[in-house]
Amino acid sequence: MHFTSEQRLDNGVLEREFTLGEIPGILWTPASASAPAPLILLGPPPLGLRKAYPRLAARARHVAADGFATATIELPGSGDRPRLPASEQARADLRRAVAAGEPVADEIIDAFILPLVDKAVPEWQAVLDALLSLPEIGGPVGYSGGVISIGTRLAVVEPRISAAVLFAGSFVPRAMFEEARQVTIPLHVLLQWDDEGNDRQAALDLFDAFGSKEKTLHANMGGHTGVPQFAGDAAGQFFTRHLK
Amino acid sequence: MHFTSEQRLDNGVLEREFTLGEIPGILWTPASASAPAPLILLGPPPLGLRKAYPRLAARARHVAADGFATATIELPGSGDRPRLPASEQARADLRRAVAAGEPVADEIIDAFILPLVDKAVPEWQAVLDALLSLPEIGGPVGYSGGVISIGTRLAVVEPRISAAVLFAGSFVPRAMFEEARQVTIPLHVLLQWDDEGNDRQAALDLFDAFGSKEKTLHANMGGHTGVPQFAGDAAGQFFTRHLK
Repeated sequence: MHFTSEQRLDNGVLEREFTLGEIPGILWTPASASAPAPLILLGPPPLGLRKAYPRLAARARHVAADGFATATIELPGSGDRPRLPASEQARADLRRAVAAGEPVADEIIDAFILPLVDKAVPEWQAVLDALLSLPEIGGPVGYSGGVISIGTRLAVVEPRISAAVLFAGSFVPRAMFEEARQVTIPLHVLLQWDDEGNDRQAALDLFDAFGSKEKTLHANMGGHTGVPQFAGDAAGQFFTRHLK
Repeated sequence: MHFTSEQRLDNGVLEREFTLGEIPGILWTPASASAPAPLILLGPPPLGLRKAYPRLAARARHVAADGFATATIELPGSGDRPRLPASEQARADLRRAVAAGEPVADEIIDAFILPLVDKAVPEWQAVLDALLSLPEIGGPVGYSGGVISIGTRLAVVEPRISAAVLFAGSFVPRAMFEEARQVTIPLHVLLQWDDEGNDRQAALDLFDAFGSKEKTLHANMGGHTGVPQFAGDAAGQFFTRHLK
């Protein structure tokens, strides 16, 4: 893991960009950490870190006040990373269907999401290895964010993640429902009730499928990017309850 | 409004039983109130105040720490109050259907719930008149609780209620979906995902129907009485956000 830049934000949080092999990312650590900090992996949306930066950095600064370190990565195929040929065509097909108000075929969803999950999950695990080797990062580890199928797979295969906030804001391949049944860690699922780029019933079905004994669904009004501030606060309280 | 008993709870909260005409109820006021307190009406479940007392009193003590006064009443037909002949037969029919694992006919739900709503809502309004005339009670006023159709009707007809926590734990007459569309106050809806005496899809449909711009659904695992402590805390934060 190579740090490529470093700056102090106005509230003292240290923001460092890094690369791990071909994976770029950002690490935020609290201003003053007396002990190794618990860590939240911030799963980014697939629109590129540059566009997502303001929201991710705001989230990182917010939870740093509660003592959490946070890290995010550029997803495979996003930002300046090479496109994933397998999912590029499907992404375009999906956008076309949504824009036309048509139902999105299962094949399109599978072709868009599954290659991304297959590539992103081992990358997150490699980044987690590197992060946990830093003296300022301890544990436990939570995952928060983005593409819900990536969070679901991570929750199944990565035992170091002990709680997750998932955002039901992306289409869900049929195969993920089976994986969801294998999830056992505490979950906090956010759903935007009128999310234009999401299938509400599929999100409710996925929530139902998760095997976790503790799982909570917070549904709020508004579109994909309209998650209210109080819903972010509630997600933060979930992590404080489980990671501290 | 006549106070019939008075006691200080161990945290200093003043608990007073009252009657207003034929309506019995309980009022809890915070230990030390420097100004008239905001008020939460605690809608009881239809199983009688005596049985519901431990949960209601715990709730009242909890929010008293945040400065709220709370009041509850015995619902018409519950506890020692005269039965409501209109809904008694339907209540028995409903229990039989649920126990047998059969779908509950719309006619049974209507016959059980609608007479209760018709009688309880004006009673709550009369109690609210009386409570707001007490010098120690100010406002604003929230409603929290119980039979979701009573809370829905109150939210439509009673302009002094400015926010409501509703518990999606009772069957919903078809007519209430139309009333739900007329609700505009902020809502916080609790749903127990595996509530044995509730229809999950109807609860989701009702949430969808509410006309409020700010409405949040918090769904948690477990049965009717298994609302987790953190869900109660989140409901308290909702009231603090809207009533203080």
